[in-house]
Amino acid sequence: MTIPSDRYLLAAEVEYLYAHYCEALDEGRIDHWPSFFVDASLYRITTRDNLERDMPLSLVLCKGQAMIRDRALALQKTVMYRNRCQRRMLSGIRVVDGDVDGEGMKTRASFLVYESVGDEPTRLLASGCAHDVVVRQAGALKFKQRLLVIDASVMPDSLVFPI
Amino acid sequence: MTIPSDRYLLAAEVEYLYAHYCEALDEGRIDHWPSFFVDASLYRITTRDNLERDMPLSLVLCKGQAMIRDRALALQKTVMYRNRCQRRMLSGIRVVDGDVDGEGMKTRASFLVYESVGDEPTRLLASGCAHDVVVRQAGALKFKQRLLVIDASVMPDSLVFPI
Amino acid sequence: MTIPSDRYLLAAEVEYLYAHYCEALDEGRIDHWPSFFVDASLYRITTRDNLERDMPLSLVLCKGQAMIRDRALALQKTVMYRNRCQRRMLSGIRVVDGDVDGEGMKTRASFLVYESVGDEPTRLLASGCAHDVVVRQAGALKFKQRLLVIDASVMPDSLVFPI
Repeated sequence: MTIPSDRYLLAAEVEYLYAHYCEALDEGRIDHWPSFFVDASLYRITTRDNLERDMPLSLVLCKGQAMIRDRALALQKTVMYRNRCQRRMLSGIRVVDGDVDGEGMKTRASFLVYESVGDEPTRLLASGCAHDVVVRQAGALKFKQRLLVIDASVMPDSLVFPI
Repeated sequence: MTIPSDRYLLAAEVEYLYAHYCEALDEGRIDHWPSFFVDASLYRITTRDNLERDMPLSLVLCKGQAMIRDRALALQKTVMYRNRCQRRMLSGIRVVDGDVDGEGMKTRASFLVYESVGDEPTRLLASGCAHDVVVRQAGALKFKQRLLVIDASVMPDSLVFPI
Repeated sequence: MTIPSDRYLLAAEVEYLYAHYCEALDEGRIDHWPSFFVDASLYRITTRDNLERDMPLSLVLCKGQAMIRDRALALQKTVMYRNRCQRRMLSGIRVVDGDVDGEGMKTRASFLVYESVGDEPTRLLASGCAHDVVVRQAGALKFKQRLLVIDASVMPDSLVFPI
């Protein structure tokens, strides 16, 4: 057998992190969101168009967990998400390279975000690709980076909640 | 290494159960549906709205495998699903807690159900979250509970087939 | 423990193959596409309707890697995919049976293909099921067969790019 089993067990652990993260946001537990990041972390949402042209534009940009916590607090005060329900679907979660116990391990995932508001039918908010960096902190995996690249060139205005 | 490998192997086994279940329904093998449940099982589809308000309303409610078998039989007699094709997509399958060899193991998963009818374009029927309980019976994993919570507050009328 | 761990490690390896494959196509790296197949391979896209009626119609049919390479080359010359971005989502990846080191191992997966073009909102191109055969070649998993069965009976005309 030539299967490097450690790599696949680590992949399963990464899948668990993503499942846990999406579950928290889908349930509207925005106060839980910062706990998925380490102190020196980067969270950014942009479009593929912006990224390819090397444009610094971002829909959301948080440098460090403190800024992520501020954003979570601000979102918590809005009531808008009460009658909204979002659903995050991931596919193709993949460990690229790097070391989870060192500088960090690069991971990739494709995502869809759906939203159901009031009596309206459920609709797709965005599709895209996540370029993440994961590290281990006190035994648990955390995000050191989440770079979320949306496929559409026009940002959906209702994408206030994090992906 | 601190990875509890047994837990991740069990997670893989759970993923297999879900894949197998969705495949049977997507292929219209409704007669196969009851075999995924143990005798004393609960199957329920409701909305998030109903669940949060503690309302007993359900789109579908089956108490026990016998009732699930009755429903399967009734659906088998309708021809409506012949020119329909459904596609179930899951994401974030996660073992929450509990014991698969004891009272049961709680699992979670996000789902999308798509439908293609005749010449019409494929459309999303529902998104939601499954709150399930899985037990082992004669070696194989089976559902002791499937509680399917739809995100939209309005039930799609064409959701006759199980999720 | 009765879990056949080898089977689940192999399943994880299969998941990696699919993630890698979708990533290459989602990023528009069509030149990379033929490398996922062995020489004597079959690539076909058809509809569920055609398959059930045993009709030989295909949207795409490539017999052998050379023909896949020709198609990749032809697609590379078109510029149409430059302002298009596709997103492949998979679910229910499952090892059915067979031997990856022998005649090949049958695998299954449900898929969605989304497309974002210019300023238009992201839309679903197709949902369906993949019936694949995977073999090991020089250590790496490759496709011996990809049979992609689309749920809708009408083919989306913009499905020029492979699934």
